[in-house]
Amino acid sequence: MVFSSALIENAVNEFAKLPGIGKKTALRLVLHLLKQEPAQVEIFGDAMTRMRRQIKFCKHCHNVSDDEVCTICNAASRNNGVVCVVESIRDVMAIENTQQFHGVYHVLGGIISPIDGVGPDQLNIHSLVERVKAQQITEVIMALSPTIEGDTTIYYLSKKLKETPVKITTIARGIAFGGELEYADEMTLARSLTNRLPLENYLQQGK
Amino acid sequence: MVFSSALIENAVNEFAKLPGIGKKTALRLVLHLLKQEPAQVEIFGDAMTRMRRQIKFCKHCHNVSDDEVCTICNAASRNNGVVCVVESIRDVMAIENTQQFHGVYHVLGGIISPIDGVGPDQLNIHSLVERVKAQQITEVIMALSPTIEGDTTIYYLSKKLKETPVKITTIARGIAFGGELEYADEMTLARSLTNRLPLENYLQQGK
Ligand SMILES: [Zn+2]
Ligand SMILES: [Zn+2]
Repeated sequence: MVFSSALIENAVNEFAKLPGIGKKTALRLVLHLLKQEPAQVEIFGDAMTRMRRQIKFCKHCHNVSDDEVCTICNAASRNNGVVCVVESIRDVMAIENTQQFHGVYHVLGGIISPIDGVGPDQLNIHSLVERVKAQQITEVIMALSPTIEGDTTIYYLSKKLKETPVKITTIARGIAFGGELEYADEMTLARSLTNRLPLENYLQQGK
Repeated sequence: MVFSSALIENAVNEFAKLPGIGKKTALRLVLHLLKQEPAQVEIFGDAMTRMRRQIKFCKHCHNVSDDEVCTICNAASRNNGVVCVVESIRDVMAIENTQQFHGVYHVLGGIISPIDGVGPDQLNIHSLVERVKAQQITEVIMALSPTIEGDTTIYYLSKKLKETPVKITTIARGIAFGGELEYADEMTLARSLTNRLPLENYLQQGK
């Protein structure tokens, strides 16, 4: 691609660093911005910079947050005794979109995957165990993708939580095995939360 | 979509204002930026803001430019006597990518389209006529999309340039009629430039 402007070339290259954005798409986006008022483009640029600079991670659940404690952990309407364990903040959003869950979350920040070199120590597992031990938590719902890695993580967490009296459940397998949780439709996701299973049943189901 | 962070919601909404970017894609892009270093995201944001604030339009050809005169008009290697008339800066880029054209450009900034309310006065037509009258221009190549609007614009320009001795040619119809010039592959575009026709032949061809 030949550019007669370094400013445009630079902007195109920056867009093209984003996942799924090729050079042609990047150019289309830049030419769109070029048609906007400078102040509008500044709002766009600032939104990204400010988001990254100011974002925090909730000290309880590791969800993204504008403050030290996220709006979900902070809400009086939520049941702090039920903790839904998810892989990522995308999964928090997917479950929040169902409007069917009124407990709180714990974001692991990934999933145990030896192939990708992700072990338990890289994940927010220690803080989950501490949380269950220290607080009045009655139920931990494992809302992980129904994959080998998801199952491995559920198994590891259940061992770590065995000494506590907490009830461990998993979301129902409404989602096809091997599917990604975040792509499940809201209905399926809501239903699999409602139909969640005690861990023992889940482990039997896989046999 | 439910967000637990206003910073993220804002960033997603800004991305989703871009053409072809839905809310889900916008979220994916924001979560990607979230994983980058703050300094890297600042570079991204600044690239957009700076591009829009500092971009200029070449005083000769109306192409985007980092300076008063664009790199193409400024290049000693280019033949200033041959002017290629295009609709937009995208078309300049498409033709530059062929590396087959060594003249200069004139960007109309659109095409005559009564349906869209675009008349000759909204386009950089007056400056083209002035340019042809004032400078040693031997040939004007009409490189407009082969559509009704393209033909209308060619016809209008040819009337305006009739009093000048300039030779008017059009790019060959290698591109399917009704096709968009910027989506033509480089080979087709290069060939249709090489095989350009005098205007009379072009007008006959349409009959
Ligand atoms: Zn929280
Ligand atoms: Zn120029």
